[in-house]
Amino acid sequence: MVTTATPISGVLETILYVDDLEAARAFYQVVLGLELYSQKHGVFVFFKCESGMLLLFNPDAALSNESIPAHGAKGPGHVCFAMAEDQHKAWQARLKDHGIRIEQEVTWPNGAKSFYFRDPAGNSLELATPKIWGFQETGAA
Amino acid sequence: MVTTATPISGVLETILYVDDLEAARAFYQVVLGLELYSQKHGVFVFFKCESGMLLLFNPDAALSNESIPAHGAKGPGHVCFAMAEDQHKAWQARLKDHGIRIEQEVTWPNGAKSFYFRDPAGNSLELATPKIWGFQETGAA
Repeated sequence: MVTTATPISGVLETILYVDDLEAARAFYQVVLGLELYSQKHGVFVFFKCESGMLLLFNPDAALSNESIPAHGAKGPGHVCFAMAEDQHKAWQARLKDHGIRIEQEVTWPNGAKSFYFRDPAGNSLELATPKIWGFQETGAA
Repeated sequence: MVTTATPISGVLETILYVDDLEAARAFYQVVLGLELYSQKHGVFVFFKCESGMLLLFNPDAALSNESIPAHGAKGPGHVCFAMAEDQHKAWQARLKDHGIRIEQEVTWPNGAKSFYFRDPAGNSLELATPKIWGFQETGAA
């Protein structure tokens, strides 16, 4: 018999690894408008993003941290953020105003729209309308 | 003037990279109880997790995919999932029943509890009560 537990109620922490934490802080705070939560020089920058956290770590610092289990990956990661459908053009314009190149635009089979760009560390970011996964605009299933 | 856009409304996709997709599928579906959404042999396994998606990719397949911008990281990543406070012991028992070792337990300064374990690929996973970040049990801010 395996013990039952109530289901996981969501993702609390989404992680990306970045080489330059200050460049990343500026990008996620100023360009993407995320709410800065805390930072530790050379180690991490944490952002609040609605009901979850986006945690940016220097991978070498995270791998050598002895206070919690080691983690730390190298190479381009990926995160997709939710945007309201009527903000598609505004977000593209905002990124272009900041000199960020739109790498690819996609209209998915179900009509959802998304586009891709890179953070300063080279991670692949995407802004998508929630219906890409069948979610309502609020993010609720 | 920089174009304004309404704020990002959350993280839609959280990504982890795994070497063995089938082992990962079994772990996340059977042990963690996530809802399997879709899979492509040798490339990805996608799970629905409340208002977001957890996407598991083979990093080499994701790096060589030419249909969307390349991504793919190597090394242990990290994701933290939300558990209800009264499910802390049940989740630990459930993981132990499946032979999963609890790597570390933490009671955080604000009273939130979390514990760490590994997925089959070596990614660092954490189950935490939402108040770890000041969130209510529902995940709402």
